[in-house]
Formats: sequence, structure tokens, C-alpha cells
Amino acid sequence: MAELPPNNARISQPPSGRRTLLRAGLGATTAAFVASRTAGALAAGEIPPGEPDSAKSLGPGIGDRVYGMPSRFEKDMIRRNVPWLTVNAETSISFTPLQYQQGIITPSGVFFERYHAGRPTVDPATHRLMIHGLVDRPLLLTMEDIKRYPSESRIHFIECPANGGMEWRAAQLNSLQYTHGMIGCSEWTGVKLSTILQDVGIKPSAKWVLAEGADGSHMARSIPLDKMLDDVLLVYGQNGEALRPEQGYPLRLVVPGWQGNVNVKWIRRLELGDAPWFTREETAKYTELMPDGKARGFTWPIYAKSVITFPCPEIPANGPGIYEIRGLAWSGLGKIKQVDVSLDGGVNWAHARLHDPVLSKSLTKFTLEWRWDGKPALLQSRAIDETGFVQPTLAELRGVRGTNGVYNNNSIQTWQVKPDGSVFNVQLA
Amino acid sequence: MAELPPNNARISQPPSGRRTLLRAGLGATTAAFVASRTAGALAAGEIPPGEPDSAKSLGPGIGDRVYGMPSRFEKDMIRRNVPWLTVNAETSISFTPLQYQQGIITPSGVFFERYHAGRPTVDPATHRLMIHGLVDRPLLLTMEDIKRYPSESRIHFIECPANGGMEWRAAQLNSLQYTHGMIGCSEWTGVKLSTILQDVGIKPSAKWVLAEGADGSHMARSIPLDKMLDDVLLVYGQNGEALRPEQGYPLRLVVPGWQGNVNVKWIRRLELGDAPWFTREETAKYTELMPDGKARGFTWPIYAKSVITFPCPEIPANGPGIYEIRGLAWSGLGKIKQVDVSLDGGVNWAHARLHDPVLSKSLTKFTLEWRWDGKPALLQSRAIDETGFVQPTLAELRGVRGTNGVYNNNSIQTWQVKPDGSVFNVQLA
Repeated sequence: MAELPPNNARISQPPSGRRTLLRAGLGATTAAFVASRTAGALAAGEIPPGEPDSAKSLGPGIGDRVYGMPSRFEKDMIRRNVPWLTVNAETSISFTPLQYQQGIITPSGVFFERYHAGRPTVDPATHRLMIHGLVDRPLLLTMEDIKRYPSESRIHFIECPANGGMEWRAAQLNSLQYTHGMIGCSEWTGVKLSTILQDVGIKPSAKWVLAEGADGSHMARSIPLDKMLDDVLLVYGQNGEALRPEQGYPLRLVVPGWQGNVNVKWIRRLELGDAPWFTREETAKYTELMPDGKARGFTWPIYAKSVITFPCPEIPANGPGIYEIRGLAWSGLGKIKQVDVSLDGGVNWAHARLHDPVLSKSLTKFTLEWRWDGKPALLQSRAIDETGFVQPTLAELRGVRGTNGVYNNNSIQTWQVKPDGSVFNVQLA
Repeated sequence: MAELPPNNARISQPPSGRRTLLRAGLGATTAAFVASRTAGALAAGEIPPGEPDSAKSLGPGIGDRVYGMPSRFEKDMIRRNVPWLTVNAETSISFTPLQYQQGIITPSGVFFERYHAGRPTVDPATHRLMIHGLVDRPLLLTMEDIKRYPSESRIHFIECPANGGMEWRAAQLNSLQYTHGMIGCSEWTGVKLSTILQDVGIKPSAKWVLAEGADGSHMARSIPLDKMLDDVLLVYGQNGEALRPEQGYPLRLVVPGWQGNVNVKWIRRLELGDAPWFTREETAKYTELMPDGKARGFTWPIYAKSVITFPCPEIPANGPGIYEIRGLAWSGLGKIKQVDVSLDGGVNWAHARLHDPVLSKSLTKFTLEWRWDGKPALLQSRAIDETGFVQPTLAELRGVRGTNGVYNNNSIQTWQVKPDGSVFNVQLA
């Protein structure tokens, strides 16, 4: 015990001889953990009908699911892709099954994927992040280095700006998963980039940062230094565990509220410069072709948006009666302040209830009681964020941007409910 | 379009003919989604060293992981059990790998398990919840019925009261996972029980509710009606998806802040009565044998508790230098108000930083910068909740309750850091 600090007197149970002590404690502790297989004092008549067979005997025990999976009855809770949408699986996208999402957290197992050259396998032991360019002291960091910095955990959504991109010209996909499923929301854990940039010394002329991924496409995006110093995270954790491979394991950028593409995955390099790089993914792609033939670039923030998740095409109503309309709202500019719901295609609106926690740049759950008389209905939701931004109609968006674009469709979604309860994706003129 | 409400004029894109339209849109949308396999305008010299091989070519694409799993490099992120602790796998427990938890959300795949008769397979299509006893209108509810009620999503921890139970007499297990891993924290989605109980009509004489599970043990616990009407949820969702089988799929009780055992899983029956039932699991078990030979029963709330998750026995320090002490704190009485950290076994204390969101009856993350000089240290954390309850030392707890007990050990944990950085579970006299 010589190595104990002097102000600590005694340690009643030294760590040595642990194994022996474990065994010595066996008799005392085991009994308390072991429960009987038989029921308590319930009379036979008290057992409800419909008792599953499994309740009559022992089920499987621990040990067979050291890392658990969903129930076999939840086989529809999977990511899906649109086979004809892209030329191959390596440059493709899969969609979050938003119709089954309960609450604001997207399970890591079904968080949407977007690959530009497939999903690289990156060994965290050999992975490095280089920070260079207009800095005083370039750095090459290991994952262990990065995890030693002060950590931050925050709940944020990430949305691909092409979410809903197929709907610009007409209602195409009768599905919540395919019209809105390029989004997910997780608790991300990592380091504030501002913390690390303090260590490299930013030169006064630096205004932009290039973020580059370690995938085969060498995904690269230019991001203003101001944003990087504001709230950007270098993330190694998602929903309580390490990042999933699909999300950039072992390291990605999370750029809160900004389009998914700049949240560079498998990140290996940050270069500080005085001007943007105009990479492929911010010129040929991820720009918006306007009606006059010019393109808008660097359109980063996700503006206020919402969608009704029940009812929806995948989960219809089941006859007249009382329901709860449920949905999700989000804004890349801050917190959601209000969500309105219309049952008649936008003529009349009611305030939905927002559920705690309402967090900045996160999904927010909303609900509204719905007494359905069985008549046709046109359901819409409209989000308003704390900056006062109001989610627009598709007609309003088209009025400004035309129909050439793919990106940043944050328009109000209309679900048509038919008398049989089925739900369709429609667009109002 | 005859079924449209009269106040809605036109629908520009009817849902019929969807398939054709999808194909018509192919040319316009595909190009925008397809990215090149080659990098942008990066000079060869800009590629950092340590580039993984995978970055040189296409990785696997979407489609092979419709429900994703952790990286193969994260093989230690699993639940573990103590083989000698219980007589078989069906009446056993597995522990959350808390040493790897990032943030406050516990991944559903590693959320601790506790079985009294194994894990039943319950078909949601045939499962029923019966509510009867001192009510005006007994109810038999299907899962569909339950999901139609207004929904609630809340982040709460669930802790087995036997967490740390092996440590009452001496430091036994040199492990964060085994000393504190009978806890998890998730976003739960379900129905407020108060909402459903409004529908059955509570008779004035009702004071207690029996909650019974559909597992082979017919787990049954008596819970005061007041608590049931306060904040108890009938839960079908966890972390954005359906409950996992280990957590009571398709339906469980979440009794916020109260010991895990009353959060009855696979719940099939609620009976209202005027007195507790004194079931096996609230008499022979889940009671505390006091020094005078009497037993305390119905000790439901989890009192303020915390633990340092880094460094810990599983994740030692790696040489002198700057670190961040990280940990988790929780209270079954409300929000965590303050966490103090000591480096010298409780002589001196510093306030740790609490990370947002700080939620009621939830895990809360705390951190404190630690400049380690390489000398031995005795790390402790002490949680204080919004009621003013201060996490006690083990000596204080033993002074009141002796060492006969198994349950409700919420004492301050001491981690001894040795000069080589290794960390041991010790108890101060």
C-alpha cells in the first residue's frame, strides 16, 4: 500500500487476492440472485386469456445474445433502398424506416446510409486524422489522442439534402420511408473541433476548412471556419457506443443542422485555407439548379421541416375512431417552436403538442388527437422554428426554385387518407 | 377524386399510376444521386500517412446490412455475465458494458438483462393486457389498442436494485461492468398508465396495482396506485424502435426512478386492489435484511448515485498527462443537481461539469479535467440530486444497514489508480 496518498488511511479490501475473494463471496451472494421458476400466489382464474405458450415454461436465458437484436416479429424494421435509383450498391443510399420510429432517437441499426464509394473498413488502431494548412503546428492524431480531449455528447439529426428530392416535380413514391427516410437522429459523442483547433494555432488568414474522408471517393467538403469553431464535433460515439461502420467508424464530422454531405464520414484530414476548394461534391453535386440556369452553391443549413409519421402510406388508419396523429419536426437553425397540423389540406390548422425534450438541431416529436369520422382527409404538418422560419408549401418552393433541383425540399407533406383508411402521397396544386 | 373534401381543389399528382411515374422520373433523379469513385482535386502529397487500404478502392455498399451491427473492431462491446453467480442461464443476469458507454443512451443491444425464468417469445398479435380488479369496466387490450392511446416518449434509466450488491461486504469484482452494469438508460415510448386507467374507472377503494409478467416466473409486483397515476408508462418502444425481447417485448412497465424489478417485462395483467399482494419477489426477494434481523420491504426508489466510467478497471490511464475524468450520475427522485469528484479518496472535492440534457430520472453525464502526475490516486464521485439527497459513503450505508443486504447499494465508488495507470476497485475503511 506504499503507493497510496498519505491522506488516505486504510483500504479495507486491497485489490490483491481478488480471485479468492470472489469465490469466498459466492455462497452469500448467489442465493439472493436466484429466483424460482414458479409463480407467486395467483389463482388459476386470474390468468388472462391469450397467455402465450412461452409463459408456461422457461424461455432462453442470458448468454445467447451478448449483443442483442430486435424481435423476430419486427422484420420490417429495416433500411431499404430503391434499386433503380443508383447504378450500384457502392454509390447508393438506404432509407431509415421512419414509419416505425418511436420517439426522437433513430436506432443505429437503421440509420440511413449514403455511400459515394462504398463503406470502407477502417482500423481504429491505424487510423489518423491530419490537421494542417494555415495552422502554426500541424497535427497527426490517433484515435486515442482524440478520445483524450474533453468530450461532448449531443443529440442532433443528420439529413441528406436530397431527402424528398424525388418529389420536386410530382408525387412519386407512396411511402414515408422513401420520401423522408434520409434522416436520422442520434446522441453523438466526440470532441468539439474548436478544442482541437486551439492546439494547432489558427493563422489569421484561415477562413475555410476542407474536411476529407478516408473512403474510396475521398469525400471532401469546404466548411467555413466560423461554423467549425461554433458547434462542430469530431464524433466517435453514437447512441452510447462506437460509431457504426455505416456512419463513419471510427471518426466522422457532425456539423449540427447542416446538410448530411458535409458531415464527412471516416474523416482523415482537415486542412485550413483562405478560400473554399470547390470540390466535386460542392460544384457538380449538392448545388441547386435554379430556373434561370444558374446554380446555388454552399446551401448548407436544413430549414424547418416536419412530417406526419402516423398515419402514413405504410401505416394506414384502421376504421373511424380516435387516433393520435404523430410526427417529427426539425430545424437546422435551432429548436422547433411550434408545429401545426391540418386535416383539410392546409385550410384549417391546429397546434400540435411538442414532446420533451425539445433540443436544438434535433428531431422533435409532436402529436395531436384525431377523431376520424371515416371521411377523406388531407393531413399536413407545418413546422416553425425559434428563428421564426415557417415550413413552406411545395408550391411556394417551386415558385422560387423551379423544378430542376434535387436538394433541400423542406416543403409541407400532404397525406391523403381515403375512407378505407389507406394513405397516399399527394401534392396539392 | 370524388372522395376529396370539398375545400380541396386539385391534386396535381394522383397516387394512381405511381409505378409508371417512378420509372419516368428515373433519368432525372439517378444522375444526381450517383457520385464518382475518384477523388477530387487533391494532390498526391496531401494524402496523410496511415491511409487505410480500404480507402484506395470501393468498399461494400448498401444492402448487406439492412439492420446494422457494430464494427468488428468493437468486439468487447457486449453484455457479460458472471457464470458462478446464478444456477443457470434462465434465472440469471447480464451486465451492461458501462465502461464503453458514450453519453447517456445505453444501446439496446447491450442493455442489461435480468431473467427470472428466461426470455419468453411473445407474439404481439396474440398478446393481451388485462386490467381488472377494483375497476368499473375491466379491459382486455391488444397491442393495437394500446398503441392507439396518446403516446409518451421519455428518457429514463432502469437499474436493478442488486447493482453493486456483491460489494456490500468487501470489494469483490475489479470491474466497472460487474460492479455497476445492472443499469441502462433509454428513450422509452408508450402510454401513460393514467390515460388507460381513466378508461377502466378506478373504484375509490383501489390503492394498489399488481403488475404481472407473461414470463415463466409470472413475475408479479405490487405498486401503489399513486405512483401508477403519477408517471408510470406502459412501454412498447425503446431507443426509436420496438422494445427488445430482453426488455419485455412487446410490452413492459417503466416505473421511472424505481428499482428495476417493478418495471415488469412482458406485462400481461394489471389488477387494482386495496392492499399489496406480498408476492414472492417483494417478500423472499427484493427486501433488505437489516442488522436486527428485520427486513425492509417495498424500498422502491433508486437514490442518488454515480460512478466514474473513465478511468476504470477496464480502461486504465496511459501514463501521466491530461485526461478527462468521465462518469454517469442518476437519481430516482428527479434531476441530478451536482456531481463532485475527488482525487484523494474523499478529502478534497471539485465540482464536475454536468452535460446537457440533464433529465429527470435519467443518466446524466459528468466530466472533470484531470492532470495526472503519475502518482497514486483514489478517484471518487458523489452525486447530489434536486431533492438535496447526497450519495453516501459505503461506511455510512453500512452504519445503518449492516452487511446482510444485497439491494440498494448506492454508495460512493472508489477507484485506486496505481502509478502504472492500472485501476482497482477498493473500499476505504
